[in-house]
Amino acid sequence: MKLLEERIKKDGQLLGEEVLKVDSFLNQQIDPELMKEMGKEFYRLFKDNNITKILTVESSGIAPALMAGYEFGVPVVFARKHKSLTLKDHLYSATVYSFTKQTSNEIAISQKFLNEDDNVLLIDDFLANGQAVKGMLEILDQANASLGGVGIVIEKSFQKGRQLLDDEGIHVESLARIASFENGQVNFVEED
Amino acid sequence: MKLLEERIKKDGQLLGEEVLKVDSFLNQQIDPELMKEMGKEFYRLFKDNNITKILTVESSGIAPALMAGYEFGVPVVFARKHKSLTLKDHLYSATVYSFTKQTSNEIAISQKFLNEDDNVLLIDDFLANGQAVKGMLEILDQANASLGGVGIVIEKSFQKGRQLLDDEGIHVESLARIASFENGQVNFVEED
Repeated sequence: MKLLEERIKKDGQLLGEEVLKVDSFLNQQIDPELMKEMGKEFYRLFKDNNITKILTVESSGIAPALMAGYEFGVPVVFARKHKSLTLKDHLYSATVYSFTKQTSNEIAISQKFLNEDDNVLLIDDFLANGQAVKGMLEILDQANASLGGVGIVIEKSFQKGRQLLDDEGIHVESLARIASFENGQVNFVEED
Repeated sequence: MKLLEERIKKDGQLLGEEVLKVDSFLNQQIDPELMKEMGKEFYRLFKDNNITKILTVESSGIAPALMAGYEFGVPVVFARKHKSLTLKDHLYSATVYSFTKQTSNEIAISQKFLNEDDNVLLIDDFLANGQAVKGMLEILDQANASLGGVGIVIEKSFQKGRQLLDDEGIHVESLARIASFENGQVNFVEED
């Protein structure tokens, strides 16, 4: 998505070798107009997949997921993050390890919001090592819901998450795919 | 806002004497169409206030704030919640006490997202004792930003938050105002 790539080039900040900070339009300050365009793009990419619900993880996934949900006309569910869960009654939950922060979180949703009739589009802000998506897939499994696809805002293609999902035959679409960071520059994957 | 009142009557769950659960359309599952209508209503209510930015708190404030931001054509900033903050460099932060959970959280935003040129609409999902709004007002103070108004999705008018803000002459608009819970029924404030 050209608009997003341009925005990343303009406002993204590289920290070290692997971290891209986009808190000026996605992760803390949000550009609603850009989110709207992203929602439309997710709809274009997955509109034939019979999506009944969108699942994401708080907090940065909520804005793109909401705008996509509006385009699809389906509810959006966001999993909450917990340091630990003592009581798992009536919850679907999974453990998500963050390589960046080197900590684990539990993500959980109430069981009443997903069931076997749902065909779910997973949306997240970043795809790096694929841990958050793996956690959401575990939740779908527990709910016997089907997977309608995975929509990612920014994919770091040089990390292993995308390969991992491709290997499982999962339909993944990323709005921006980063091939590498070089000399403070972002290089995007060239699309055919 | 009639649409919201009807939805609360239909899908809201009363827990005990003071807690209203609306996780089926706002706090965990989100209805994008309803959020869109709420965004339009916030715009109608505050469109003459020269709003330059919207501030909310993660996670449940993000959806209504985003849809309002889209209508106003201004950025949305969400404060992050932390159990505690050891490092406050480059942050504006405030302590928010939750009477429901009986715990304190720090809320914080990066200093780069608010300044003295901003006229800010605060948006939150609930107004009960007013602690979250008070925290956001502290952040505006630290940034020397001005307050353009406070937009609330659901106000529990029988708790002290609304009175507290009225006493300070703050322009507050709530999309639904709950006067009381009686026998498992929600009673709304009668508007003139």
